[in-house]
Amino acid sequence: MTDKTRPEYIRDAWYVAAWGEELTDTPLARSILGEPVALYRGESGVVGALEDCCPHRMAQLSQGVVEGDNLRCGYHGLMFDCTGTCKEIPGQPNIPPRAHARHYPLVERWNLVWIWMGDPAAANPDLIPEWLWLDHPKWAYSHGIIQYDCNYILLVDNLIDLSHTTFVHKQTIGTHDVARTPVKTERQNGTVYVERIMNDTTPSPLYRKAGGFEGKVDRWQKIFYEAPGNIVIEAGAVPVGTNDPSRGIDTRIINYLTPETDDSVFHFWAFARDFALDDLDMTELLADQITLTFNEDKVLLDGQQANLAARPSQRLLDNNADSGVVMARRLLAERLAAEAGR
Amino acid sequence: MTDKTRPEYIRDAWYVAAWGEELTDTPLARSILGEPVALYRGESGVVGALEDCCPHRMAQLSQGVVEGDNLRCGYHGLMFDCTGTCKEIPGQPNIPPRAHARHYPLVERWNLVWIWMGDPAAANPDLIPEWLWLDHPKWAYSHGIIQYDCNYILLVDNLIDLSHTTFVHKQTIGTHDVARTPVKTERQNGTVYVERIMNDTTPSPLYRKAGGFEGKVDRWQKIFYEAPGNIVIEAGAVPVGTNDPSRGIDTRIINYLTPETDDSVFHFWAFARDFALDDLDMTELLADQITLTFNEDKVLLDGQQANLAARPSQRLLDNNADSGVVMARRLLAERLAAEAGR
Amino acid sequence: MTDKTRPEYIRDAWYVAAWGEELTDTPLARSILGEPVALYRGESGVVGALEDCCPHRMAQLSQGVVEGDNLRCGYHGLMFDCTGTCKEIPGQPNIPPRAHARHYPLVERWNLVWIWMGDPAAANPDLIPEWLWLDHPKWAYSHGIIQYDCNYILLVDNLIDLSHTTFVHKQTIGTHDVARTPVKTERQNGTVYVERIMNDTTPSPLYRKAGGFEGKVDRWQKIFYEAPGNIVIEAGAVPVGTNDPSRGIDTRIINYLTPETDDSVFHFWAFARDFALDDLDMTELLADQITLTFNEDKVLLDGQQANLAARPSQRLLDNNADSGVVMARRLLAERLAAEAGR
Repeated sequence: MTDKTRPEYIRDAWYVAAWGEELTDTPLARSILGEPVALYRGESGVVGALEDCCPHRMAQLSQGVVEGDNLRCGYHGLMFDCTGTCKEIPGQPNIPPRAHARHYPLVERWNLVWIWMGDPAAANPDLIPEWLWLDHPKWAYSHGIIQYDCNYILLVDNLIDLSHTTFVHKQTIGTHDVARTPVKTERQNGTVYVERIMNDTTPSPLYRKAGGFEGKVDRWQKIFYEAPGNIVIEAGAVPVGTNDPSRGIDTRIINYLTPETDDSVFHFWAFARDFALDDLDMTELLADQITLTFNEDKVLLDGQQANLAARPSQRLLDNNADSGVVMARRLLAERLAAEAGR
Repeated sequence: MTDKTRPEYIRDAWYVAAWGEELTDTPLARSILGEPVALYRGESGVVGALEDCCPHRMAQLSQGVVEGDNLRCGYHGLMFDCTGTCKEIPGQPNIPPRAHARHYPLVERWNLVWIWMGDPAAANPDLIPEWLWLDHPKWAYSHGIIQYDCNYILLVDNLIDLSHTTFVHKQTIGTHDVARTPVKTERQNGTVYVERIMNDTTPSPLYRKAGGFEGKVDRWQKIFYEAPGNIVIEAGAVPVGTNDPSRGIDTRIINYLTPETDDSVFHFWAFARDFALDDLDMTELLADQITLTFNEDKVLLDGQQANLAARPSQRLLDNNADSGVVMARRLLAERLAAEAGR
Repeated sequence: MTDKTRPEYIRDAWYVAAWGEELTDTPLARSILGEPVALYRGESGVVGALEDCCPHRMAQLSQGVVEGDNLRCGYHGLMFDCTGTCKEIPGQPNIPPRAHARHYPLVERWNLVWIWMGDPAAANPDLIPEWLWLDHPKWAYSHGIIQYDCNYILLVDNLIDLSHTTFVHKQTIGTHDVARTPVKTERQNGTVYVERIMNDTTPSPLYRKAGGFEGKVDRWQKIFYEAPGNIVIEAGAVPVGTNDPSRGIDTRIINYLTPETDDSVFHFWAFARDFALDDLDMTELLADQITLTFNEDKVLLDGQQANLAARPSQRLLDNNADSGVVMARRLLAERLAAEAGR
């Protein structure tokens, strides 16, 4: 494993830049992999992402205005389309070649806006994760975004090693059995897979609320991580010994971790369920509970970041429960090395 | 031109330190060219400026008290006159030579307090700009001070290239015609002169309010810049084709840009008019509108500074409308080189 | 003397970490000599101090929970006793040697919690100052803690040279005579002693309130400093010429200065008195007045720190009243050199 807590970024990847509804005709300024980006939605519905810096005098394009499918700088009025091509310089007929804004490929899918931070020529939409649960008649979901003041790798660790839920999330998803149940960890090609099966176990407070369980349950957590920031957790429970999905709950906690800067990360999350699909109260309950849960993590992760930053040469200690974390960091290192080698 | 966004400071110059009314017997702490200064007004009305650091234990003299025309340190009571000479060390008869505070020459003129940041021997009050409009029976003015979090050169650029008013100041002084009207730019010895004549043009919202125009106007903007921070804008309008000053308005937007630090600047501004001289509502209206206008700039300039700081080696792009800006930066570079050569 | 304003820290010393009542079963995060420490009180009443960084994933132990006399990490549940020994790693039977948290020796005495920042083997409780007034039937005290944003040496200076009270503390303990009365300064082995006797002097506002003096008094200040941060001030007054303790007041201002970081310091203070022992209003009055007094200092010291930080090579000027300050800095330098030599 590597203890390197500040990996270089993988650039040839689709990162989530925003939820679809965040992009409107008022531009949104968002830093991604440390780069300031101006995101907007044009009149036709198309989404655009330009470097948040006008090539003219370096004003922030996010302070500009959307005109048609273009973004006009709010300072001296240069206008760019969503490929960064300058369409107009007020008061002058010619447009010099340097009057070009850097653009980032965007794809809107699964109600999310995906941004490609590497070579635009390699931006293949087929590489976007297949998050079918976000657009499927048998699933409903709650969703949100939360920012942590830590390097994204700490959030990767957090979501892969759920033993922490026993200590951090007693109010929602944690129970005693999570930390004491060993996991099975496997590398499946480009995916790290971590599985925890808890049979005949007490349901967590959130499971009792969502699933209406009265007695013990058989519960599972199956975590799939793909570098750099895609983590899907398959989690659910059925009444103990029944093996009957119709009496249990099946959920997906779908996460994309997009580094904002070296010291901060956006966590785009959705909590998809196969029950109570039309129940808006359930949607809201789950949104509240998951927001509460991730805010409990935030306190710890932000503090962890401060400790790590102050101890650049100190190694972390890996316990048994860290098998998935160790494997994930190795996978990430491989991807980084592969990209550096290209 | 130079793209150097952080020029050394010209020191042999009168900078505005404060509006006259800002200086009282409660000392004012203000950083000028990155140097902390304690400004105060003595009992006799004289103004003083000392380095904001007592030579004894380095307490801030701005935390002290004015006694007569002297400033007494608020920590151990050393007392200095406005030339920095120590007049008293409590509890000890002798005053060693090192007990001297650095002072800065000050002159109060045009209701402004001017500070000389260079060699005191060269502090010639004749070099203070002739801002007659601030003390003239045919003129009245509104005034204020605003701080921007950017290097002062960005504010120089802003005030010299008024094409931005079309996009930034639609509510007050901007109209479509400003950005599309070409300027004439001239170097007149130590002055950069930029002229924009807009005949048969729609008056801006502020011009309609202030001048009561109902139809089209002939409008002019004449900008005079002298390094390092003196910018006077002669601006006005008359009803189209009349050429009749008595039916129009004549104004001067008088600006001094005093660097606070490398990343911030004080903008002392006055808006002088030749009409409604005794109308206090007009004074207040114009103060409000100009404050609103400059705050619109502040958002852009502060963002521009962030972009520039993150891209130290990236060149700006100069468009046609930047002719005055380019000339101003060249003038400034000459002045800096001349001062360095002395 | 040395003008070095950022001395290395003396490590082999007992610093005050907290007032006794600050430590409960909710851990307290506090930086001491720049090191983050998690302080807590166990069920049995024992106090513990661990590095605020779990050896596992570097979470802050101060986010954890107290269980018995142990502190359990709030992230993955590793549990440590107050010597830093790991007692449990959830989900795994073996505890590797690296699963050890750094601990700091603590002693609770005089209602204060003392921490040893050096080699634990050298942590001899006999070295804790004899602050009998904090546990004595003939004395009562008010107490508090205040943080300053300055290096602790500036606070040492402040408490040794009380001439500043004339200028800073006019509302409470300052009078004209303090600054103009010369001091006697002596080195008594490891102690710097500064004495100021003011006979036939006007009592300060606080002395009038506390001692009920109506006319002049004979007043004294005797300051004892021991490196690194122990300052006891014996201060009192009797009606002029009476030499009668029963008609006067005797007080001890007891101070421990614990560096938080290079730029900040905790000031633990107690104000002990030999009068009105059971008068809670007097306790509160004195707490309020001393808090007010030290907050007046804070403004100056924080500003002084900014000036010092900006002028690393500029020497301070030593006046007559600085004799104690100069001697204290020399003492501190000796202690530092001695510790470095060991």
